[in-house]
Amino acid sequence: MGNNVYIYDSTLRDGAQAEGISFSVEDKIKIVKALDELGVSYIEAGNPGSNPKDLEFFDRVQTLTLKHAKLTAFGSTRRRDIAPEDDANVKSLLLARTPVVAIFGKSWDFHVTDIIHTSLEENLKMIEETIQFFKSHNKEVVFDAEHFFDGYKANPDYALKSLQAAVDGGADSLVLCDTNGGCMPGDMEEITKVVMSEFQQDIGIHCHNDGGMAVANSIISVIAGVKQVQGTYIGFGERCGNANLTTIIANLQIKNDYTCIPDENLELLTSTARQVAEIANVPLDDKEPYVGRAAFTHKGGMHIDGVNKSSKSFEHIDPERVGNERRFLMSEVAGRSTILKKIQKVAPHVQKDSQETIQIMDRLKELEHEGYQFEGAESTFELIIRKNLGKYKPFFELENFKIIGEKPNLDEEFSAYAMVKVKVDGNVKMTAAEGDGPVNALDKALREALEMFYPELAAVHLTDYKVRVLDTKEATAAKVRVLITSTDGKDQWSTVGVSTDIIDASLIALIDAIEVKLIRELEKKIKAFI
Amino acid sequence: MGNNVYIYDSTLRDGAQAEGISFSVEDKIKIVKALDELGVSYIEAGNPGSNPKDLEFFDRVQTLTLKHAKLTAFGSTRRRDIAPEDDANVKSLLLARTPVVAIFGKSWDFHVTDIIHTSLEENLKMIEETIQFFKSHNKEVVFDAEHFFDGYKANPDYALKSLQAAVDGGADSLVLCDTNGGCMPGDMEEITKVVMSEFQQDIGIHCHNDGGMAVANSIISVIAGVKQVQGTYIGFGERCGNANLTTIIANLQIKNDYTCIPDENLELLTSTARQVAEIANVPLDDKEPYVGRAAFTHKGGMHIDGVNKSSKSFEHIDPERVGNERRFLMSEVAGRSTILKKIQKVAPHVQKDSQETIQIMDRLKELEHEGYQFEGAESTFELIIRKNLGKYKPFFELENFKIIGEKPNLDEEFSAYAMVKVKVDGNVKMTAAEGDGPVNALDKALREALEMFYPELAAVHLTDYKVRVLDTKEATAAKVRVLITSTDGKDQWSTVGVSTDIIDASLIALIDAIEVKLIRELEKKIKAFI
Repeated sequence: MGNNVYIYDSTLRDGAQAEGISFSVEDKIKIVKALDELGVSYIEAGNPGSNPKDLEFFDRVQTLTLKHAKLTAFGSTRRRDIAPEDDANVKSLLLARTPVVAIFGKSWDFHVTDIIHTSLEENLKMIEETIQFFKSHNKEVVFDAEHFFDGYKANPDYALKSLQAAVDGGADSLVLCDTNGGCMPGDMEEITKVVMSEFQQDIGIHCHNDGGMAVANSIISVIAGVKQVQGTYIGFGERCGNANLTTIIANLQIKNDYTCIPDENLELLTSTARQVAEIANVPLDDKEPYVGRAAFTHKGGMHIDGVNKSSKSFEHIDPERVGNERRFLMSEVAGRSTILKKIQKVAPHVQKDSQETIQIMDRLKELEHEGYQFEGAESTFELIIRKNLGKYKPFFELENFKIIGEKPNLDEEFSAYAMVKVKVDGNVKMTAAEGDGPVNALDKALREALEMFYPELAAVHLTDYKVRVLDTKEATAAKVRVLITSTDGKDQWSTVGVSTDIIDASLIALIDAIEVKLIRELEKKIKAFI
Repeated sequence: MGNNVYIYDSTLRDGAQAEGISFSVEDKIKIVKALDELGVSYIEAGNPGSNPKDLEFFDRVQTLTLKHAKLTAFGSTRRRDIAPEDDANVKSLLLARTPVVAIFGKSWDFHVTDIIHTSLEENLKMIEETIQFFKSHNKEVVFDAEHFFDGYKANPDYALKSLQAAVDGGADSLVLCDTNGGCMPGDMEEITKVVMSEFQQDIGIHCHNDGGMAVANSIISVIAGVKQVQGTYIGFGERCGNANLTTIIANLQIKNDYTCIPDENLELLTSTARQVAEIANVPLDDKEPYVGRAAFTHKGGMHIDGVNKSSKSFEHIDPERVGNERRFLMSEVAGRSTILKKIQKVAPHVQKDSQETIQIMDRLKELEHEGYQFEGAESTFELIIRKNLGKYKPFFELENFKIIGEKPNLDEEFSAYAMVKVKVDGNVKMTAAEGDGPVNALDKALREALEMFYPELAAVHLTDYKVRVLDTKEATAAKVRVLITSTDGKDQWSTVGVSTDIIDASLIALIDAIEVKLIRELEKKIKAFI
């Protein structure tokens, strides 16, 4: 493998500056573990000066033993006209007890004079003395030259002087920041090369994505000689986000022969991305390069056909390399062969031109038209195939149900109940349950009724419940699609329901989820019997 | 302004290859109008050969008079060993009656031999003869050299021959496609320059985003001399999507002095993006460069402070240039001054350190902790401020309500009803309504009851209703956040509610929406009286 590049992750600091992102201490600990497991070199985990909650995290994180990453605390240079040791923010960085400290300072003369209102000379002293202070406390010091590219364009001499001040203070690395994220690749390459030729220290790059260039600019800088790449793991960050490290790691390591993380860990790239998204409670963009759910998904018939012949025909890399997987979708433009493959999983004998295939395809199109999507709801898809092939017999009938929600007077909480009547082999059972909302009540009542007949359902519970409003233009009368994931503690399966009513849609998905479990149990019994 | 670049939009063709994207004929007409209004040069609107539904669209679109764009139909070269005039797909392109036809053909020798199974020589004939056929029908012909970059890397001589075949057939422009989307900027620049030096025709570029490089690669190609940029308007497309034209247009026109669309139309960039997303029923990524909701959003206190002093301190361009707007968020890291500005809109006398400000901030933090987000729900935010300042008096009391949903037997549809009892100035009104689901029923019943007292509510209706499950890990008992947008035909306002129950959350947002309307009406009356 080629040269090493140090990956510097700021998901927990710059990433937390993004709209809608807020991490608890527990969340941060989980993300530190995941990123260390993956093998990044630095984890910038907080700004104790501006966010006192971060100190609680730094206390807790001391108990972890990290394999790859050095924890980093982030903060500003000292304020003007004050000694570093008298600046509360500077001192708070020591309380974090991290081996590395990242200090940002101003490189753009306009920011010095017009935003922080000090002299150009004093700003250079602020940089040098703050870094000196941390070096005297035996820290590794990363200097983040804020607005370096805008600064260089406005006053190249002063921008370079700000780096020299950091060097004079003893900085271990100099990081060029495109803080406003608007730099274009040509300028990026040219300015990076100037810096490379003037300084012997390790140079780093920190890009934002306001021009959609953060990943490209980072790669271009590395090729120009930069050793450290700062970003956030799946691109969280203020405004349009920071440079997306998943894409950068994959591009550098797979396409450009650099080493960012241990090579065997590349296959953790996707699961780590999903984990970070899950912890942040933000959906990972399906289209995310390398790690997105759709990154290796094929919809067009010709593409599906090509990939079936040779994956490189429409895939730039093997999805398994980054721990992702290939998916084929069904749609107007998908070929019949894709659907056939799925049908054959249930009924191996069915052929491409057989009547069953045509019928199932018609039914799928009908359901898609109603708002169904089977991507991610394989179990409902399986049931539809079974129903069309006659390989299905209902395990129970839901004779009727009723939900009631009420707020009996101003001061009382809203409460919800459900009543359910099911029939199994002629035996009727009626139950009622109270829940957090009508769907939860219905779920409880239905399970309670069915467990009488099928005790194996006791282990089944939901792990995920998602609602998507399909046509928001019709407001409260719009259709909703409910996607649920169930588990019995061992397997996981997903089902989907669509209706104008969220309760009805949920119930459709719930019933499918229960039936799939019962089919699996029956299959096991049949196998044991044969 | 500098050189012209032709923007070639394939939202309706390549964009429709994306997971979850499906356009009706009506949708397509709307998008054609919006893109033409914006000023793109080409609109690739369908593939009549592979999708017969597209012909219905091409028939209808003939009635439009376009100002800027040339409509383009897309299809493949003829199949092997058959004349173009005998190939049904080729002929179907003529039925589209567009001035421009885009023909894709193979440039990668591996695809010729291993995917479409023909000889290298026959493939060149397929390209040349198909283009010749359309030139003889007086079409402008764009040749899309599929997999050009992968092809060039594998066999440069053959890749260039495929372009020469297109030239021999009379192609008007040659488009280099990075079909698999994995090309890195260095290769992109180098290979594009080779083509530029060998051919006199207009050269175009067509990038996919599998390496996160589609925008950068497109810009780099234009700087290398390419005249036509293909992409999709907000980056829809197979796998990781196509090159995002919003970012490309803004970068080229604002940062690199090229002309892509009439300069005065740049400010339509954001609204067009939102319109396309709305029609496609896909949420526009908040972080989208230039046009995303968060593209000029500031959360960190220091950034907000900087932007208040001078916008260029943390913004690469003025948001108004592309029709977007600046937003300041409230959060742990936001300064008090941001919130103060919002409070002062309601109560101009309140100061930064006054007791009211501190109280409101505490309340906001509490609500944020419960799952509220006021970004996009300004009206609920206003009500909270009013309630804390004592500038609020309820217009009605919801004495009680009840919702019932039931499926009385197997064959009947699920139906939902709501009963509502409201009290206004001591007068009680009770109503009931049936709806598509309990939320819709509740909405109807509540409005009906209140219109008795406030006839101005008759004009109010919902235009948008969104549900977000906040903590999916707890499945059906998770919290939901409901965001609704209301209109009275003139103004629009948004409100938000959070609860473990979707009905309760909806009701909170509905009541806020009604109260805001009543406050506005009261304000009008007071003004008229003074």
